Amino acid sequence: MSAPLPESITVVKRYVESQRAQTLEQLHELLRIPSISAQPEHSQHVWLAAEWLRQALERAGLHNSKLVEGEGHPLVTAEWLQAPGKPTVLFYGHYDVQPPDPLEEWLSPPFEPTQRGDNLYARGVADDKGLMLIWVKALEALAAQGDLPVNVRVLCEGEEESDGQHLKQWLQAHATDIPADAVIICDTEMFAPEWPSITVGLRGILYLELLLEGAKTDLHSGSYGGVAPNPLQAASEIITALKGSDGHIRVPGFYDSVEEVTKSQRDHWAALPFDENRFLEEDLGVTATSGEAEFGILERIWARPTLEIHGIAGGYTGEGAKTVIPARATVKLSCRLVPYQDPAKIEQLLRQAIDAAMPAGIRSTLKVLGASPASVVDAEHPFVKLASETLSSHFENPATAIRCGGSIPVVGEFTERLGTPCLLLGFGLPDDNLHAPNEKLYMPNFWRGIVAVADLLLRMGK
Amino acid sequence: MSAPLPESITVVKRYVESQRAQTLEQLHELLRIPSISAQPEHSQHVWLAAEWLRQALERAGLHNSKLVEGEGHPLVTAEWLQAPGKPTVLFYGHYDVQPPDPLEEWLSPPFEPTQRGDNLYARGVADDKGLMLIWVKALEALAAQGDLPVNVRVLCEGEEESDGQHLKQWLQAHATDIPADAVIICDTEMFAPEWPSITVGLRGILYLELLLEGAKTDLHSGSYGGVAPNPLQAASEIITALKGSDGHIRVPGFYDSVEEVTKSQRDHWAALPFDENRFLEEDLGVTATSGEAEFGILERIWARPTLEIHGIAGGYTGEGAKTVIPARATVKLSCRLVPYQDPAKIEQLLRQAIDAAMPAGIRSTLKVLGASPASVVDAEHPFVKLASETLSSHFENPATAIRCGGSIPVVGEFTERLGTPCLLLGFGLPDDNLHAPNEKLYMPNFWRGIVAVADLLLRMGK
Repeated sequence: MSAPLPESITVVKRYVESQRAQTLEQLHELLRIPSISAQPEHSQHVWLAAEWLRQALERAGLHNSKLVEGEGHPLVTAEWLQAPGKPTVLFYGHYDVQPPDPLEEWLSPPFEPTQRGDNLYARGVADDKGLMLIWVKALEALAAQGDLPVNVRVLCEGEEESDGQHLKQWLQAHATDIPADAVIICDTEMFAPEWPSITVGLRGILYLELLLEGAKTDLHSGSYGGVAPNPLQAASEIITALKGSDGHIRVPGFYDSVEEVTKSQRDHWAALPFDENRFLEEDLGVTATSGEAEFGILERIWARPTLEIHGIAGGYTGEGAKTVIPARATVKLSCRLVPYQDPAKIEQLLRQAIDAAMPAGIRSTLKVLGASPASVVDAEHPFVKLASETLSSHFENPATAIRCGGSIPVVGEFTERLGTPCLLLGFGLPDDNLHAPNEKLYMPNFWRGIVAVADLLLRMGK
Repeated sequence: MSAPLPESITVVKRYVESQRAQTLEQLHELLRIPSISAQPEHSQHVWLAAEWLRQALERAGLHNSKLVEGEGHPLVTAEWLQAPGKPTVLFYGHYDVQPPDPLEEWLSPPFEPTQRGDNLYARGVADDKGLMLIWVKALEALAAQGDLPVNVRVLCEGEEESDGQHLKQWLQAHATDIPADAVIICDTEMFAPEWPSITVGLRGILYLELLLEGAKTDLHSGSYGGVAPNPLQAASEIITALKGSDGHIRVPGFYDSVEEVTKSQRDHWAALPFDENRFLEEDLGVTATSGEAEFGILERIWARPTLEIHGIAGGYTGEGAKTVIPARATVKLSCRLVPYQDPAKIEQLLRQAIDAAMPAGIRSTLKVLGASPASVVDAEHPFVKLASETLSSHFENPATAIRCGGSIPVVGEFTERLGTPCLLLGFGLPDDNLHAPNEKLYMPNFWRGIVAVADLLLRMGK
């Protein structure tokens, strides 16, 4: 840690500590709601999580909290605008979560938060319910001392994990109603424990679902094997036509607008505490990576586009042997996109490549389930620098600017529609198992995050 | 039809007609039992079907009926050996069925037999419960007139659809206890309606399950995309390494012992009433076949080996988007084998080809779920000729010798262990949807089959 903390933040810190038990109980409450936005049967749970959040914002002293209904799941908005002359900060978070399957791999139930050591395990604890609660609780702690040091707006959504369009559509119509000087988002990770990180680049995404249809019905491979088109064989042929075994995407034109990383960026990344062997052995548990061998691991994750297969469904997958040639198969796949790659253009290139690889006798339908471009934040903006200084005083190492391989589509929307920088303050850790079984949050980061965000708001208000 | 039927068979025919309602009710009873041998949760149902069959054999006048318990599902045996000096016929059938999924594609429930037009729809009605009941009812009709014209043994199993080893193991120890002059099996199809068929060649099978494992847990494609080994990508690479988009199997040595079809065989097949366009449009509902374009469709199905993918499981396949890199994927695949291909040798070749195509960072496990060689029956054997004459007098066209793309592993066992020819009398039709939704049996064939089999036994006893 650097200099001792000023009195104002020490008071906040004491308050946060006094509220630990209650805060933890509230976090558990929110985590128990299975707000899986991609699954229609959970839409009531998604709504419950929205309402829970609204009440939490009320408790934090914000005004005019409400659920904004529309197509899809509701937005949650609130505000506190009693600090004339001070900056206005817009907070964003999402209260929905990924589906929890495969369920059998969870060591404790995904919607029953369970503490093991310093970690709290539950679906959504790191993405994004726990991290979102960091700034909610920072506002509550500041409000408990009197007026907030800045003006505050809140805009949360429940469709981040399902690529819903509600927030995007709402922003198209209402962005001018919520002017702000900065956006704060806690939905990213620290580069490593005690390495506070501000994410200044995010990959975009194009998510596709490909339906392949062969014969009109499932067929017996004895009577029809060697003759009937097989959608699972077709899926394999198309997938390998899109990406080679060398990790290179084979779609013509795919890499055309991909920017080369500069030497200074590469040097900065090389100086980060990244242990490749440890990453392979401990994070992944594999002996080798896949992908483009000529780029380093960080560069592949942060600055190279990808094509990954997320799911294949088709045929008989139960126990034992069934000699069926399935009538259809489905492939879910996505490309992570880097700056200057246009999702619409990439979709068109993929569509052409898929059609070109389509075997005879197979009909196909390609659906886009989500698309958003990559985004980059200006690391030189005064608020980005202030955030960097603040984080540095709450953790052992100075804050560092990193990129993130993931996508937070709304960052691009905010940058474009509001013209304000997004401060992506990371309090997760790389091994949080986002979107996977045993998602967890390292709780010391949660508690320190609350104090750090409160401190940042105090400094922004000065 | 040729000459008028002699009095003895006319009596049998009248008896069969008088029993129609009861016979149909009994068939429905058997079809209602979901005896899915591949699924352990149905083992009690498999046992119930065995016991049902045992009682039906008792009703047909056979002696010493019993369930032979052992590893896996029981065998059902029975006998009638009161015809000294007459030939002994061994009847084989299987009382187990394939799993019914995908359930949503059935027009009526798979285990609630439903008549629509001349067809009866139910899982197993053609494979093999309905066809098995043809010879059971033929025996019952003959027994109702007095002594049977031949000695009879019955050996049925409940593991034909799950590649169980019980029958095979039992035959190793007990084949000499059941001497027979011929085996009759009704588990094949007629080439076309009114084209009675004796199947003189069956493909063998090698069924494999391949487990592919990447990272120790499911991963987020944002944080790990482009780096983490992806078992679904691996599955696609392996599958396309095994079979090319031209339909040729790329496994080195795979075709080495495949015999070329003779010109006379090809001419015989070319003379059969086979309409390629109709097959494509009506049977398959596709515009083009897959597979080896240089061979005709019948030759591809009857005399060429195949490699087909039956199922791929891995990743997220529910509704919406989930950006997961799955930790594992499973592929079910099989090869249909032709005469002279040794399943053990083919397994070894596939194992080598799969290992050679394995991407870095992926671990694999290959399990054999079933293996049996192809088999051929001597079309010149006197009983084969007698069966051909008999079938010719009960249908519009003369009986013809055909092959079958499917596998009945027990045929090879019987040929090898008993040294007797297998008479594969087909009463199914090519569009019976075996192993698929809406499996059906054309009931006129069922009724005529009973009379034809009874007639054959009368002729064999002369």
